[in-house]
Amino acid sequence: MRRIDPQPASGFSDLLPKELAVRQEMIDSVRASFARNGFSFISTPALEREEVLTGGDPLFAKQIYRAKITEDDAPLGLRFDLTVPLARFVAAHADDLVFPFSVSHIGPVWRGEHTQAGRWRQFIQCDADIVGATELTADAQILALVYSTLSDLGLSDRIAIRISNRKILGGLPEFFNFDQKLLPQVLRAIDKLEKQPWKEIADELKSLGLDSSAIDGIQELLSIRASDPIELLDQADKYLKFAPQSHEGIQELRELSGYLDALNVPRTTWSFDLSIARGLGYYTGMVYETSLVALPRIGSVSSGGRYDELVSRFAPLRIAGVGMSIGIDRLRVALDELGIARTPNIGAAVGVLNFDESCKLVVLRLASDLRNAGISTALYTGTDNSLKGQLSWALRSQFKIALLVGPQEKDRNVVQIKQLEARTQDEVPLAQIIGKCRESSCFAPRDKSIIRPATYGPRSVISTITIAPFAGRTTRTIDPSGSVLCAAEMPCLSYSSPDAVVRP
Amino acid sequence: MRRIDPQPASGFSDLLPKELAVRQEMIDSVRASFARNGFSFISTPALEREEVLTGGDPLFAKQIYRAKITEDDAPLGLRFDLTVPLARFVAAHADDLVFPFSVSHIGPVWRGEHTQAGRWRQFIQCDADIVGATELTADAQILALVYSTLSDLGLSDRIAIRISNRKILGGLPEFFNFDQKLLPQVLRAIDKLEKQPWKEIADELKSLGLDSSAIDGIQELLSIRASDPIELLDQADKYLKFAPQSHEGIQELRELSGYLDALNVPRTTWSFDLSIARGLGYYTGMVYETSLVALPRIGSVSSGGRYDELVSRFAPLRIAGVGMSIGIDRLRVALDELGIARTPNIGAAVGVLNFDESCKLVVLRLASDLRNAGISTALYTGTDNSLKGQLSWALRSQFKIALLVGPQEKDRNVVQIKQLEARTQDEVPLAQIIGKCRESSCFAPRDKSIIRPATYGPRSVISTITIAPFAGRTTRTIDPSGSVLCAAEMPCLSYSSPDAVVRP
Repeated sequence: MRRIDPQPASGFSDLLPKELAVRQEMIDSVRASFARNGFSFISTPALEREEVLTGGDPLFAKQIYRAKITEDDAPLGLRFDLTVPLARFVAAHADDLVFPFSVSHIGPVWRGEHTQAGRWRQFIQCDADIVGATELTADAQILALVYSTLSDLGLSDRIAIRISNRKILGGLPEFFNFDQKLLPQVLRAIDKLEKQPWKEIADELKSLGLDSSAIDGIQELLSIRASDPIELLDQADKYLKFAPQSHEGIQELRELSGYLDALNVPRTTWSFDLSIARGLGYYTGMVYETSLVALPRIGSVSSGGRYDELVSRFAPLRIAGVGMSIGIDRLRVALDELGIARTPNIGAAVGVLNFDESCKLVVLRLASDLRNAGISTALYTGTDNSLKGQLSWALRSQFKIALLVGPQEKDRNVVQIKQLEARTQDEVPLAQIIGKCRESSCFAPRDKSIIRPATYGPRSVISTITIAPFAGRTTRTIDPSGSVLCAAEMPCLSYSSPDAVVRP
Repeated sequence: MRRIDPQPASGFSDLLPKELAVRQEMIDSVRASFARNGFSFISTPALEREEVLTGGDPLFAKQIYRAKITEDDAPLGLRFDLTVPLARFVAAHADDLVFPFSVSHIGPVWRGEHTQAGRWRQFIQCDADIVGATELTADAQILALVYSTLSDLGLSDRIAIRISNRKILGGLPEFFNFDQKLLPQVLRAIDKLEKQPWKEIADELKSLGLDSSAIDGIQELLSIRASDPIELLDQADKYLKFAPQSHEGIQELRELSGYLDALNVPRTTWSFDLSIARGLGYYTGMVYETSLVALPRIGSVSSGGRYDELVSRFAPLRIAGVGMSIGIDRLRVALDELGIARTPNIGAAVGVLNFDESCKLVVLRLASDLRNAGISTALYTGTDNSLKGQLSWALRSQFKIALLVGPQEKDRNVVQIKQLEARTQDEVPLAQIIGKCRESSCFAPRDKSIIRPATYGPRSVISTITIAPFAGRTTRTIDPSGSVLCAAEMPCLSYSSPDAVVRP
């Protein structure tokens, strides 16, 4: 029999349980942040008609996977981002939507790129857009969402959001006297500034036909730096005040900065940077990129901006839009490199051993009872009938507890309970095993817990214990004697705060 | 400008927020059930090398989307199920896995089928498999998982799990004297029994070369019915006792029925049905199909079985496996038709109106404060500056509360709070608005709530209010005077029961 190579296709990767659990927690955290910020969620298919994706522009075609069933089919394309499908969605369903529409779209996209660390040919994007929003308060909320979402992931003091406005560079052709048609190529050249020395970009601008005074002027503009964002705008405005479109862009950034302050986005996390161009053609106003302070090499982990014309590709509607996108998979690699990725619990909490024919029905019922009580439980179903072999399975599977019922235990209605980390063993009556598993130390709060005691009323102390990372939380209500009255674990999407203490 | 048709490609569909919220709750519920049953989660790419998917069998090829970037690339294929990618995954990562490995895989699959109600060319599968499990206790746990997972979705008394064993029909060639090689085609013909009258299947078996005594014998076997599952096995065994392979299959089902009882799977939800053949070639033992009692037309909503050879396609390993698959999208349509699909909350709870330039910073800060307090909040960012227009936005967006700050409110440090359903309006000091939103009646338990009072200790009554459908739950701890001490909303994946009341 010829064996088929079991590796994933080149540029694609499998995720093992630990990797996927990290990704899932990140996605759940992002979902919670988006929901808290008032966003609804939609879904579009992975495959779209090719003209939807390219908008007729052949330039896009070289990274798109084209898919068909028979040779005669018109090919569909796998989406390369979520913004274009969103625009199509809005055009198709405009009658059913209420504008402004705060909408999120989370899912995989596919690009036939060369792969490197944190870059694959399939990766998850988390997009949030406010569609039908004309006000700059929408742009500000999108940026606040970037801050809030990345903060939830533990990155509040590690991000640099660099913001500009397309209109500023949009005024360049008028100001420096070059053909308006060259602007997209000029922007694409400028967009490489982080990866290439200025010399190479200058050469590219020269080959496009810009004269040396224009090239020098652009360099001078992009070199403007200031410790205060408003000062940077003042300097740029002094430089560009005779270019009306550029001036308008600068005024918009000025207004935006006030809104960011009102939305409590700390100034330490954002700055204006006139070199942010965003290669994609559809942006028309605010544009931004986010990098990680300690990991500039990994590139942008979130980007986006305002696109006021995109929907009109698909319908006779001019629907303004502004949005952000977070690349979860690149961020996952980053959290790992920064050493702040949580190692989540994976798999079962309890493993039930199973090595005696006569006890089979007892262990099955035990597993069933534990599961019905909400305790995640696995039962051994392999071929190794030795205690040593099955204990090794339980240890390597990283269960917290192993339970054992042999013929002697069965006759006496007891269970051996092994705490695998503490390496202790106790005998417990079968009827008490659920309570015993629940109160096991393995369900106690982990290292990162926060304990917030809260005196409430004359007789009660409520202590809320929150397992902090991402959106995973355990809330316990504890009475003054220390008894746990109520425990709830909330590993994901939570609309209301689990710490809420309310008196109606 | 030529406009591009905004409809999704034929056979594919968009999901609006309400539809996606239902699907997401279903997926979260399934994830919670799988986790409770001890399963870990993995992910594989959507695109696989084509030989991985087809195993070299050209029969599969006609439903597979083949994808490539340039004409010269060897095409990749979009996966048509999750079982084949799982087998590849296990072969690729066998050294990093602990067997038996309870593993779940949730994601979209693609098939170039004709579409109909509940069937699309892209749909979400939720798979759970125990890999490396040789024991029938594994088969029983998979069936218990089907029951438990569908019960969580509100279907406990609406499902019919029909179970058989491939070995029973596997003994037919020997018993009825026809060529072993014809068996796959015979099974595929039998598999159509639900959709076609026996006459057509008999014709198909005849055209395959089976003689009339074999055809009559197969019909007789498939017609065996009995109210008790063991009686059905007894009758079949009487009939087939001279076919060793068939007898072995019957004995396995006998053993399985005892395990299902031990796992508390009610007999009313499952039966043995010897006509269950499962068209796919890779099954070797237990096979099952699940239909909805009130909606047989919609077909199987969950199916699976034991496949002991699949991994050996990819590695010199004989790894036994048994698994289940739930098609979420078909089930979503079914829940809707049955009238038991919950209408989940979508979008924001609070909408902040925004129509005065001088109040812009106040409303932005208000939205930010509410969000930071965990209250899902949207802010109006459109062009309509009338109260009527913005209230219409809030009503049509189905927010629970609208908040209004105009110049007068700003000067007096108050907010107008409008309960949109109750159509009431109150004026509240700005500093109290978070508490006021929290205690609003819209956060009270909804229709489907279950209230479970629990006396605990001398002074406490803990009342746990659970919003039942799927995994969405709100847990509130209420003291004897009726004050809410602690509230937690848990719309998804929950490893431990939110109702747990424990004394350490």
